[in-house]
Amino acid sequence: MSDLKSSTDVLVIGGGMAGLAGALALRENGADVTLVERAPEFGEVGAGLQMAPNASRVLKRWGLLEKALEIGVRPKHLVFRDAVTGEELTRQALGGEFEERYGAPYVVIHRSDLHRVLLEGCEAAGVKLVNDVMVESVETVNGRGVAHTAAGVDYEADVVIGADGLKSTLRPLVADDEPVSSAYVAYRGTVPITENTPKADLEDVIVYLGPDCHLVQYPLRKGELLNTVAVFKSPSFERGEEQYGGVDELDAAYQDCIPAVQDALKNLGTAMRWPMYDRDPIENWVAGRMVLMGDAAHPMLQYLAQGACQALEDAAVLQDVSNGTVFTADGVNPAAWDQAIKEFNTIRAGRTSRVQRTARVWGESWHVSGLARTLRNLLFKSRTDNNFQYNDWLYGQDQPGSPSRPEAALAKTLSA
Amino acid sequence: MSDLKSSTDVLVIGGGMAGLAGALALRENGADVTLVERAPEFGEVGAGLQMAPNASRVLKRWGLLEKALEIGVRPKHLVFRDAVTGEELTRQALGGEFEERYGAPYVVIHRSDLHRVLLEGCEAAGVKLVNDVMVESVETVNGRGVAHTAAGVDYEADVVIGADGLKSTLRPLVADDEPVSSAYVAYRGTVPITENTPKADLEDVIVYLGPDCHLVQYPLRKGELLNTVAVFKSPSFERGEEQYGGVDELDAAYQDCIPAVQDALKNLGTAMRWPMYDRDPIENWVAGRMVLMGDAAHPMLQYLAQGACQALEDAAVLQDVSNGTVFTADGVNPAAWDQAIKEFNTIRAGRTSRVQRTARVWGESWHVSGLARTLRNLLFKSRTDNNFQYNDWLYGQDQPGSPSRPEAALAKTLSA
Repeated sequence: MSDLKSSTDVLVIGGGMAGLAGALALRENGADVTLVERAPEFGEVGAGLQMAPNASRVLKRWGLLEKALEIGVRPKHLVFRDAVTGEELTRQALGGEFEERYGAPYVVIHRSDLHRVLLEGCEAAGVKLVNDVMVESVETVNGRGVAHTAAGVDYEADVVIGADGLKSTLRPLVADDEPVSSAYVAYRGTVPITENTPKADLEDVIVYLGPDCHLVQYPLRKGELLNTVAVFKSPSFERGEEQYGGVDELDAAYQDCIPAVQDALKNLGTAMRWPMYDRDPIENWVAGRMVLMGDAAHPMLQYLAQGACQALEDAAVLQDVSNGTVFTADGVNPAAWDQAIKEFNTIRAGRTSRVQRTARVWGESWHVSGLARTLRNLLFKSRTDNNFQYNDWLYGQDQPGSPSRPEAALAKTLSA
Repeated sequence: MSDLKSSTDVLVIGGGMAGLAGALALRENGADVTLVERAPEFGEVGAGLQMAPNASRVLKRWGLLEKALEIGVRPKHLVFRDAVTGEELTRQALGGEFEERYGAPYVVIHRSDLHRVLLEGCEAAGVKLVNDVMVESVETVNGRGVAHTAAGVDYEADVVIGADGLKSTLRPLVADDEPVSSAYVAYRGTVPITENTPKADLEDVIVYLGPDCHLVQYPLRKGELLNTVAVFKSPSFERGEEQYGGVDELDAAYQDCIPAVQDALKNLGTAMRWPMYDRDPIENWVAGRMVLMGDAAHPMLQYLAQGACQALEDAAVLQDVSNGTVFTADGVNPAAWDQAIKEFNTIRAGRTSRVQRTARVWGESWHVSGLARTLRNLLFKSRTDNNFQYNDWLYGQDQPGSPSRPEAALAKTLSA
């Protein structure tokens, strides 16, 4: 079936954020890592990305945070406004007490920039990166993972990390499910900030909450670009049309919103529409020596801005569970992978399931009308700055399922 | 058309809480007051009534608060719980800071007891009380109000106060509208508190909030009686049936609630069902020398427990506007009534309209399910004890549209 074999400690399938992070994390443990990507080049589409402290702590662990900060922006506040009235509902200062509490900054960064930081991190660390590789199937043979490719080349490794995203080719090994459409569609765009850009809120992440729609806006690239994301419920999805969420629906979706929101729609690219999908949480991510991570394991709606963040957490936990077990001072112990990926799965599935489920409800609460909107607005307005009751579980250190702190990981290495 | 005439300063039509309060208030100013009631006896049906400080302040003004307190109960707390989980959502201590802030106690009292206190107040003050009088119409003739009765007896007065309730005969003089059904039905009941009564919460007003239903429970008569009110949305109303809300729907409405709530249904009288009505607010309550007050002017849903309270406020403002204008140190000046009832209307309509509208939304928020329930619960739980932001407009002293403080009223009398 295969002409050639490539053998390595770790094979990562997928060169998005999750795959790069997973590859780098295990390379940090000393593994020989090969990462294969189906596309002819590495890269990311999309616009901005919010990196909360739970994720920037992971970058910090790998020594990549400074690089991200060079190109990213540290927004001053996260602000929620009602899109119909413009009224401010709540505001969290992201420096000061917030940053101290969570041990790392809140950073907004272009997706392609974060991707490049991780890619360069992999390159510098010596991850073997291979493009144009279409993995068709993975099986476990004689206690090793084997990936069969369209080109007929097999890749063999002690463990295979399936990081191939929402429409994962590998997920059917552990679950018979499909992506779940939320009926919402996103349009995104980045435009240069010029003297004509409205000055308000340019240093903050602003979220406008409207009926069946919202709009997010924040600066990117050291404040040179303005990032805009508009997400709305598609009437044509409700009508059962397959190609739902066309640009014809965009303006109508925001017709009740304030001019600032309607004007911001001009900043969107309309060539690409992004239907919003997630999946129901699943418990098992492991099949033999293959384990899923990132969106392949736990795709989530974007309302908590945690898609990439949770992939970074995954990677850090993969690093922790294999450090001192698979990768020891005496060399590599491949037999320990069975236990390590099981532990990874156990540690992470509860947490990511909570993030997936919370993202759905959180998003729902953004889009309500009528009485529920009144209650939502009163609830948001009742919140005081630096009240962290809704943040700690997600951003906090030492939360169940989140990666160890760097010093804990270091301590483990030293004691191994 | 009429055989006999009875002439007086003030004619009050209706012997419920509103009419008695209005009669007493104007009698306090020195008016000759006749009150006519259609029923053969004075009395009140129903069970308990919550008298908030904005209403107990009015009783205090008339020297009737002590009497009400002799037979009523001062609950320790107002407590909201989720009816499905039993979880406490928020709690307000009704003594201490609350009572100090609002200048009078929160009292729960049997409707018939409060009615009797007012009735005895009227008797002691010399209001002429007449039963079995069915007023068919009121007109203004030569600057006086004339009430034509079914018996053919006319009642004439400088001013006619229309206090004939939700289904007011007089309201058509100012508005062409109908009661609005809320699709909700109430069952009420009072049972003796015995050694077998569950001990929990017996000193508090407890409101259990459920999907499309709620249940209220508090002690009455010095803690000897337990008052229970169950209010639920009638499925047969939704089906368009005219006789909706039968007792067959009662148990089913509470099927998702905790046992404490389901057990409390046994305390209800089921012989009488009370469909819940209000009306849309109207601006004008005046036709010639006739003015509406109480439920005839502004019937409201019971969620704020303000029906009787707002009638007491009406009465106190009627007292204030006629004191020193109609009723002066030099005698009665009937010509001043035109201005006085206009002023009464102006002062009160804005406030009662707000109470009517808020009661609707407040009630809606009690009955929500799903996400709105989650938001409602989080909002309620975010509230701290003695946070009065949602209470001041209603219970606070010197609020727009509420009666003057007693000392202000007294000062006006002395300066007149």
